[in-house]
Amino acid sequence: MSAASGTGFLAGAPHRGAGESFRAVDPGTGSPTGPEFTSWTSAEVNEAAAQARTAFEANRELPERWQAGLLRDLAARLGAERDAIVETARAETGISVARLDGELTRTRNQLSGFADVVEGDGFGEPVHDPADASATPPRPDLRRMLVPVGPVAVFGASNFPLAFSVAGGDTASALAAGAPVLVKGHPSHPGTSEVVGACVAEAVAACGAHPGTFALVQGAGTEPGSALVTAPEVRAVGFTGSYAGGRALTALAAGRPEPIPVFAEMGSLNPVFVTTAATGARLDAVAEGFVASMTLGAGQLCTKPGIVFTTAGREFATRAAALLAESEPGPLLNRATLDAFESGIRIPAAEVVTTAGPRTGPGLRTAPVLALARLADLRREPALLEEHFGPFAVVVDVDSDDDFLDAARLLPGSLTATVHSEPEDHERLRPLVTELVERAGRLVHNGFPTGVSVSGAQTHGGPFPATSDSAHTSVGWTAIRRFQRPVTFQDLPEPLLPPVLRTTTSVEKEEQ
Amino acid sequence: MSAASGTGFLAGAPHRGAGESFRAVDPGTGSPTGPEFTSWTSAEVNEAAAQARTAFEANRELPERWQAGLLRDLAARLGAERDAIVETARAETGISVARLDGELTRTRNQLSGFADVVEGDGFGEPVHDPADASATPPRPDLRRMLVPVGPVAVFGASNFPLAFSVAGGDTASALAAGAPVLVKGHPSHPGTSEVVGACVAEAVAACGAHPGTFALVQGAGTEPGSALVTAPEVRAVGFTGSYAGGRALTALAAGRPEPIPVFAEMGSLNPVFVTTAATGARLDAVAEGFVASMTLGAGQLCTKPGIVFTTAGREFATRAAALLAESEPGPLLNRATLDAFESGIRIPAAEVVTTAGPRTGPGLRTAPVLALARLADLRREPALLEEHFGPFAVVVDVDSDDDFLDAARLLPGSLTATVHSEPEDHERLRPLVTELVERAGRLVHNGFPTGVSVSGAQTHGGPFPATSDSAHTSVGWTAIRRFQRPVTFQDLPEPLLPPVLRTTTSVEKEEQ
Repeated sequence: MSAASGTGFLAGAPHRGAGESFRAVDPGTGSPTGPEFTSWTSAEVNEAAAQARTAFEANRELPERWQAGLLRDLAARLGAERDAIVETARAETGISVARLDGELTRTRNQLSGFADVVEGDGFGEPVHDPADASATPPRPDLRRMLVPVGPVAVFGASNFPLAFSVAGGDTASALAAGAPVLVKGHPSHPGTSEVVGACVAEAVAACGAHPGTFALVQGAGTEPGSALVTAPEVRAVGFTGSYAGGRALTALAAGRPEPIPVFAEMGSLNPVFVTTAATGARLDAVAEGFVASMTLGAGQLCTKPGIVFTTAGREFATRAAALLAESEPGPLLNRATLDAFESGIRIPAAEVVTTAGPRTGPGLRTAPVLALARLADLRREPALLEEHFGPFAVVVDVDSDDDFLDAARLLPGSLTATVHSEPEDHERLRPLVTELVERAGRLVHNGFPTGVSVSGAQTHGGPFPATSDSAHTSVGWTAIRRFQRPVTFQDLPEPLLPPVLRTTTSVEKEEQ
Repeated sequence: MSAASGTGFLAGAPHRGAGESFRAVDPGTGSPTGPEFTSWTSAEVNEAAAQARTAFEANRELPERWQAGLLRDLAARLGAERDAIVETARAETGISVARLDGELTRTRNQLSGFADVVEGDGFGEPVHDPADASATPPRPDLRRMLVPVGPVAVFGASNFPLAFSVAGGDTASALAAGAPVLVKGHPSHPGTSEVVGACVAEAVAACGAHPGTFALVQGAGTEPGSALVTAPEVRAVGFTGSYAGGRALTALAAGRPEPIPVFAEMGSLNPVFVTTAATGARLDAVAEGFVASMTLGAGQLCTKPGIVFTTAGREFATRAAALLAESEPGPLLNRATLDAFESGIRIPAAEVVTTAGPRTGPGLRTAPVLALARLADLRREPALLEEHFGPFAVVVDVDSDDDFLDAARLLPGSLTATVHSEPEDHERLRPLVTELVERAGRLVHNGFPTGVSVSGAQTHGGPFPATSDSAHTSVGWTAIRRFQRPVTFQDLPEPLLPPVLRTTTSVEKEEQ
């Protein structure tokens, strides 16, 4: 079993930064855990970016779709290191072994799934419009495909130390595009980053790619991240984290001499609407499902349902509060998250219906809090319409289901929006569903938003402020598109065309 | 024949702005032409944006894919008004009737082509991943499609008064997405904008869409454009114009409380590489093609070849200069363009090889200018690597074809890159082609970059500074994607799904 030793990875080898030192904290105990790590300086980040550029060029010599092998090899290595990864992540994040085990499986499946996409027929979206002399004006031979943008910077998230971190969705989709990846590991779980990063570095070597194809930048301050986003070689950024963090990186990227896109997934309220018919038929079941979803990962999931609208507001809140009182509070991911949570949820406009006070021990535990408000309260208290990262939610009591549409119009962009209804509601719900399409990337019916399947039809994205670019998803196969750009080849002779665009490609393949 | 009367369009009706007045100038004579127009105030723009939002919601009641009918109806109306449109545009732009006639045909074909795309099977890219209880975790039923982002602001370009203006590619692709469009007409051709805008307003009415689906904002200053980009209802911007203009709008959009994307097509150098074998085999033919492409539209096309690399530099430049001396100088589009051109091309590092001095009359005519430089000159004179909008280009004399790769690495992002070569060159050209893929959206072989076919395989885009977002094209069917975003529907009951995502859609269609 590989233990963390306090490094990142530069050009395929372990590398300790020259900056200040930091250590992870076990949220379950509040005590430091694992070895000492050091932050990378801007100069070290720049070296990694230069290596990534070199790798981008060197990897062109590899066989087409080489990255599929890298993705599969990495999935296998993560499986072989399962025990080390899960135990390190448990100590650094306070997340249960069972959930981390599932997250690792999901992360491996995600890598294999992207490998399948890379090897599939549609990869790169090749299109061929043959020459047409009869067109006005005559059309030349045009062939189009998507190519990788170049080196990509990825910021690991605190709340998914595996699935949205060093070998997570952003890394997997950037590698699938054929782009080198520079990961800024989250300082809450540097050891997990290192153990996973070692697997990535080994996979890169095993598949014959240039060692600059991957770097793991460690750091507790803002310097290494800023250096990554401003490095000229970096062509795009994937980020999952706070609204403030996402906005800062977006501004930094826009201010470069050559601006680059930042695909930031930030905060999300994830509203839930429960019709009167649905509370009438199954209030207890909906409240149970809601409490389970709200407290999953101690409320630190980006798809946590943060606000519920129902005509049975008090009844729903009372039932949910009773369930919450029975739940075991989980620790938050780090001290800063705990502090932000406990100060952020003091909202005078809402009535707190949970009975437990904040439980601050052992470690970074805190009790879930449920608040009850009226629709009018949302209009005068903006804090009720903001994400509170952690186990907090608001139940909004409305007069009738007809108020849902007005309520929806108050909502900021979210990753998800959920409706619980009965068949007799469907016809009347159309305007609400239409409105929610404007405000979310995924609509959920009679379910809960946590649990994001990795598939072709998935959208994990949504209007601002949920993300910085609602045209994309950060989960699912089309996440690759963030790191690709189209290029058209006009009348190019076959030897100069990318193999996938050659007319003779399929014949050649058969002959091999 | 409909003549311009000095209006824009608001909510389906002609509207005169309350701001300052301005008139078009006939570049052929330098004298004012057409009626007096007035700039719209911010308040008037905001009213148009509010109408567009209302239209976006109202149009949901129309039959699915209603916009195909609008696009076809508009194409027909532009045909019926051909004489008025072409004559007004000729007077306002100095572009020949023959070219304008072709541009109108192209614009109509573009509208019909987008209508075909809207009615095609793949429109909205629907994807369905059925529920899979055996997956870990179990996968719900997921259906994904692209939906319109909301109202779109389009900035008309000066150099294509039809194809990149009021009913041009940005408008056509936004309407195809199902988005209302607010066009800021270019102040150089307000009458053309009005006559075309009348066709759009009539087409909107004829197809039963809400009158707010289209507005034509007139204005000579920056106020109406700024108001458009900052209007909260506007969700995306399409722009074709100068680097400075594109950067200003991008910054404005990024600074909004809710940032929106700006798809700006700005300046492009469009490099051309001619191998020694190609100059040996057909120097005259390449020089002729180059001169024709460089002077098309008086050098004011975004794909004008602005720089040529060849080992036969002086010979090529001398031959091209002789051809240019025989050419008839066309007028530039407006006084500001002429002034910028004549001051911008005084570049001490390069030798001017054309013999004619700037010809400033009649009207806004100016003579084409060709300069000759060495590769080393590019390293010390940044102006040689900038777009000069108008009939100017640089021939760069290199020592050998091996210098092409170094030259390519100096180049900024372009819309296009062109290579002229002979079969014996192909193998050696691979590294150059690979480098050019990094630096352009379209590679052209043994041709010239002007003339942009509207088709599925087209890319009219490219790395910064050619565009603000290299992931997209502004010409061709995938231009629609700029104005769409994905939404996933999880376990939604059939009646609440968009028709195209319903399982029973095809059966229902057959029954109708």
